Amino acid sequence: MKPIILVIFDGLGDRPIKVLNFQTPLEAAKKPNLDKLAELGITGLLHTIERGVRPGSDVAHLSILGYNPKFYYAGRGPFEASGYGIKVQESDVAFRGNLATIDENFIVIDRRAGRIESSEAFAELIDGLEIDGIKIIAKAGLNHRVAVVLRGKNLSDKVSDTDPHIINQPLKKSYSLTEDDNSKFTASIVNKLTEKAYRLFKKHPINKERERKGLPPANSLLLRGAGKMSKYESFLEKYNLKAACIAGAGLYKGIAKILGMEIIEVEGATGKTNTNIEGKIKKAIDLLPAYDFIFVHIKATDSLSEDGKPIEKKLFIEKADQFFTPLISLVQNREIILTVTSDHSTASDIKIHTADEVPILVAGFGVRTDKVNKFGERSCQDGGLGHIEGANLIDFLINLRGETKLYGN
Amino acid sequence: MKPIILVIFDGLGDRPIKVLNFQTPLEAAKKPNLDKLAELGITGLLHTIERGVRPGSDVAHLSILGYNPKFYYAGRGPFEASGYGIKVQESDVAFRGNLATIDENFIVIDRRAGRIESSEAFAELIDGLEIDGIKIIAKAGLNHRVAVVLRGKNLSDKVSDTDPHIINQPLKKSYSLTEDDNSKFTASIVNKLTEKAYRLFKKHPINKERERKGLPPANSLLLRGAGKMSKYESFLEKYNLKAACIAGAGLYKGIAKILGMEIIEVEGATGKTNTNIEGKIKKAIDLLPAYDFIFVHIKATDSLSEDGKPIEKKLFIEKADQFFTPLISLVQNREIILTVTSDHSTASDIKIHTADEVPILVAGFGVRTDKVNKFGERSCQDGGLGHIEGANLIDFLINLRGETKLYGN
Repeated sequence: MKPIILVIFDGLGDRPIKVLNFQTPLEAAKKPNLDKLAELGITGLLHTIERGVRPGSDVAHLSILGYNPKFYYAGRGPFEASGYGIKVQESDVAFRGNLATIDENFIVIDRRAGRIESSEAFAELIDGLEIDGIKIIAKAGLNHRVAVVLRGKNLSDKVSDTDPHIINQPLKKSYSLTEDDNSKFTASIVNKLTEKAYRLFKKHPINKERERKGLPPANSLLLRGAGKMSKYESFLEKYNLKAACIAGAGLYKGIAKILGMEIIEVEGATGKTNTNIEGKIKKAIDLLPAYDFIFVHIKATDSLSEDGKPIEKKLFIEKADQFFTPLISLVQNREIILTVTSDHSTASDIKIHTADEVPILVAGFGVRTDKVNKFGERSCQDGGLGHIEGANLIDFLINLRGETKLYGN
Repeated sequence: MKPIILVIFDGLGDRPIKVLNFQTPLEAAKKPNLDKLAELGITGLLHTIERGVRPGSDVAHLSILGYNPKFYYAGRGPFEASGYGIKVQESDVAFRGNLATIDENFIVIDRRAGRIESSEAFAELIDGLEIDGIKIIAKAGLNHRVAVVLRGKNLSDKVSDTDPHIINQPLKKSYSLTEDDNSKFTASIVNKLTEKAYRLFKKHPINKERERKGLPPANSLLLRGAGKMSKYESFLEKYNLKAACIAGAGLYKGIAKILGMEIIEVEGATGKTNTNIEGKIKKAIDLLPAYDFIFVHIKATDSLSEDGKPIEKKLFIEKADQFFTPLISLVQNREIILTVTSDHSTASDIKIHTADEVPILVAGFGVRTDKVNKFGERSCQDGGLGHIEGANLIDFLINLRGETKLYGN
């Protein structure tokens, strides 16, 4: 059976952008390999959840991987925490966190503390604290990111975020989303932790240093996405596919780990623009044929869009493209089933995730080709796949392998 | 009102095949009439159940005919038995059967006994037997096929197949799929019948003759697809269409009969490659205007794919195509609504049904045309119908007649 390689460029889809002469970054990029793969394969437009739904990266990935987020999703916290290496237990409540900058009136003036290089020193300051019998577990992610897990009795995930989600708003108090005592208790823990983090963070030498350099200090912790871990069938149980994940950013490793995929580390896979794409793709090929399904995640396309950098996004796509060369012959020899797509569009003009469809290409074993020979948001409108939904993707790929269970007789 | 003719080429869709220079058999075939019909009509891609579902012929036909198999399907046995002329009663349990070859250790070495020419002599050996108060009704189908119906009290269809479905596996014992006494009883009847069939079949003169010729003997009976008959609204009740069926193979006649269609026999309609396609199409035209809906089924495209014969499939399509000539002028004069499509794809490289879409063309009265002028899996990607589902087909055709019930006011 031919192995499947699924490459997700996070936030790849975009809009026509003025500085790119009203091309999208993907359309404007010189990317001979991705275009060749579109030519060798079949293309289309993917609604990762469904038409008109603007997805977060977490639910979009669940949906693409065939786990309907309506049944499976329970907040991003547990994924993020798992990705950072915390073994989340069923009674835990997990949050995503940001190091942020607040002013003396507790107004959030930078939600990412200037995308500080590392949150490690700050995570360590709160990791292991105990508040009213609840243990705090904190682990650093990329840049400003921190995962926080509350462990103990009587915890609930029905609590609101402390993150105001936009700047120039005050740091919020967490409140209970139900009348339940456990959620009131949990909100009180979150608020006490937020105060404690502020007192510990603001006096840290790194912040003194940052202030001296005119950089925004990481003086506060914003928490969001409270969730408890759901029960997930593993990818192997659900699809009978032995799966591996190659990713830099924590969330994607977390999702993959929760779905029972093997996490394969690649040196220099940072989840940033400097990430080792060459190494990731080489590693994916090295894993053949030991794995049936290899999920490769590339994060920087999303971050660059959210930062409003369409030209840099275009350049990053061009850089990434050159490392796809070794996949071409594998596709031509029909040795693999390769899919390249995205979890959602991120419009680099308005700097947010959008519900705009994403282009998709599938090439290799068993594929009926189409006439499209460019990989782009508009060229894929003519693709043979038409408009498809995330929920159908894995079934489509398994059918190419010839392994779909027969319905009827 | 214009009559509808629906031609189903079973298992027509295929994959790019190396020996055909990576064309599909349909793409590679010279088929001026089918291409002309595509040009005269509208085309698209049909998911007979839904995207990613790999259908059996039975559920695919139910779905295309507007009977959602999720509600209507109850195992293939009853369809097959009805098609062979058994009047299946509601308390009966019906099976599909194969004559097969087993060795002295009861290992199945040929699931079709070398596609033996006829199963008639063997069906007669078990037809009319009585086992523990249950009457056995057996009727021969094409080649190795036999339908078996159990008639009597306390029968259940919750029993497993004796057919191992792959070769080099032992003939299986049927077991009860529930804790129910009736299903345990039914499984015991199936097992006793299997033993009895083996004792009767192995010593039959036809088998002595086959063994002398070096052909695999039809020394055993494999049963599968146990089912009880569901209640079906007739096609006339459901759609107010007076319907007829022209088919060679038993399953399709069975489905049509269950839906209350008239079964029209055509001499030489065998369901094999030697079938009388000319006679079938002439007969369909002769039935106008007495019938509103004429379903014509052509089986050999599927059998050739399952046997891994893409070149023969291409040649068969070419042969069939020439008999479509009389339909062209009926379409051009808008006297009929003609649909040509398939129930599922069968990939002749991997020799199985797949979930790949099938091409569809609709031509004649009321049809908006599109730019497609070739009938093929990839040319129909550009069709005006886009991607459609089986459940929508009959409604689409009735709308062309101008007979769809108004919703709203």
